[in-house]
This record gives sequence, C-alpha cells and structure tokens, in this order.
Amino acid sequence: MGVDVKSLIRDLPDFPTEGIIYRDITTVLQNKEGLKASIEQLQESLVDIDFDYIIGPESRGFIFGVPIAYNMNKGFIPIRKKGKLPYKTKCKEYDLEYGTAAVEIHIDAIKPGDKVVIIDDLLATGGTSKAMVELIEELGGKVMMMSYLIELTYLDGRDKLKGYEVQSMIQY
Amino acid sequence: MGVDVKSLIRDLPDFPTEGIIYRDITTVLQNKEGLKASIEQLQESLVDIDFDYIIGPESRGFIFGVPIAYNMNKGFIPIRKKGKLPYKTKCKEYDLEYGTAAVEIHIDAIKPGDKVVIIDDLLATGGTSKAMVELIEELGGKVMMMSYLIELTYLDGRDKLKGYEVQSMIQY
Repeated sequence: MGVDVKSLIRDLPDFPTEGIIYRDITTVLQNKEGLKASIEQLQESLVDIDFDYIIGPESRGFIFGVPIAYNMNKGFIPIRKKGKLPYKTKCKEYDLEYGTAAVEIHIDAIKPGDKVVIIDDLLATGGTSKAMVELIEELGGKVMMMSYLIELTYLDGRDKLKGYEVQSMIQY
Repeated sequence: MGVDVKSLIRDLPDFPTEGIIYRDITTVLQNKEGLKASIEQLQESLVDIDFDYIIGPESRGFIFGVPIAYNMNKGFIPIRKKGKLPYKTKCKEYDLEYGTAAVEIHIDAIKPGDKVVIIDDLLATGGTSKAMVELIEELGGKVMMMSYLIELTYLDGRDKLKGYEVQSMIQY
C-alpha cells in the first residue's frame, strides 16, 4: 500500500465543539504522496463494482469523487446544497443535530436504471448519505456502493444505510 | 484536441437573475469523455510552469484542481469560505456586487518561497481570485499561473489580476 494515509491526517481536539476531535484531511491533500495514495486506495473499493457514475456531495465529496471518476473513465454527478445547482432540481431535507439541511440533484442527472456509487470523505451520522440515496432512487438510479475515506464508527452511520454496500478506508 | 468541451456546457438563460446566461458545467462533468477532456485540456496550461502546489477555491475549484494535482504529482491546497477550515486560518474579505464575502487558507498551508498555481472553473469579476492571491502572498507564496476552465471576458476579471499570468480554456 505504501503511504499510510491515516498518519497524515491532522487531529484537532475540540473542533468544532469541545470534546470532538476533528480529523483534518487538508494535511493529506497538501502532501503529494498523500493525495495520490488517498485517491488510489479509495478507488480500490470500486474495482469490482459495475457502475456508470460517481456521485459526490458538495464540497469535500468533490475532492475524491472527481479524480476517481477520471481514473475509472466514468462521469461525475454533483449533489449540492440547496440553491446551488442552476437547472431544475430534486431536493431532500434531512435532520441535523440542531435544525435541518437540504441537498439537491439535477432532475436529469440520473436516468432510470443508471448504476451509481457515492464517494465522500467522511461517514459520520449518515444523514447526508441517506438523503443522497433517496434522491438517487427517486430518479430511478441504483446505488451500487458507498465508499468513504474516513468513517467515525462511534456515530453508527451505517445504521441509516442498511441494505447498501458501505466501505471505508480509515476508521476511528 | 478531440472532445469539444464548450459544446457540452449547458446554457441556462436568466439564471440566477434575468439577463444572465449561466454556463452550467454539470453536463460536462457527467459525460465521461467531457470530464476527461476538460481535466486534460485545462492541465495543458500548466505543462511549462514550475510549481509546488495547486490551490483551488471551494467548491468548484476542487473539481478541476484535485485531479490535475493528482495527474501532475503535486499537492492540493483548498481555499474555503469563512469558517470551514478547521485549523488556524488567514482570512480575506472581498466585495461582491451586493455585500461582501470572505475566503480563508490555513496559515501553515504555504511556506515562504512556495510556488503555486490557482485553478478554478470560472473567471468572472476576478474578486475571489484577487483575494486568493493576497492570501497566498501574505503567507510568502508566489502565484505562477491562474488557469480557468471558463472566462466571462465581458466582466473584465483580468483587470483585477494585472501582473499575473492568467489563462482560460473557454471564453464567452
């Protein structure tokens, strides 16, 4: 495997709130060997998957989703926060610890029967991922795999994603 | 050159406001040949440049900046909207048509003498790019090139970036 990507992640205690250790990946991205290894190791999770598109959520889902789509010769479909996509969209609200958030996808991004994988840097509570799955399925797409650079296992995000294939590269 | 990337851009009249034609690149990204061609053609603008890092602004700067950094074996440094980066930051406010916006960079992202290039999808008024240049230079970095997928030439963004190397792949 070569580079130990986990060792390049910077731990920031008490961000954004006391008691939380934030896992900062900017130190991975800035290191050219780290950037290369993180993309290529995350990509390995998709080698045996049959799919048409990679879907990544704004904004850190773009960081790994686009280069992996490029390497695997697939298209990339962004899911963005509400109000950012310029064409007609389908929108999904989901609950946060306090309040709600909403993500959108272009209504013509997926055709019925399209096979997609979701790539993101972080699986935390799974709220964003669950909302993305619902958007994709409402457009007739099929989620073949959800793959994350980092999984915070103590937040039990996989419980929200039962019935789907979920992989992560680094666990805390 | 192969694929005509410009022909894959979707024109959306009257978005976000009446009289504006929005150039939607999601139709480029979704097309696997379009994604590949847009990355590789934009990358050509950097072939003869000596640099250490690619810098891209949140969130669409990530789309092209990361795969080009990967292809050219460089590190990637994100510049993000205020409040998003988890470590100590340097912040720069800049004027929008109405009000202001602010972008941030980690204070340890650049060391004095580092050579960087800025990659973004769009050069419009140049406000974000100018703020990025100021952040980079305050940390002691040197901007070797600013390269954009699309340039809206009628907004005269280059006027704000005089003295710097600026390239764009597609002009309107």
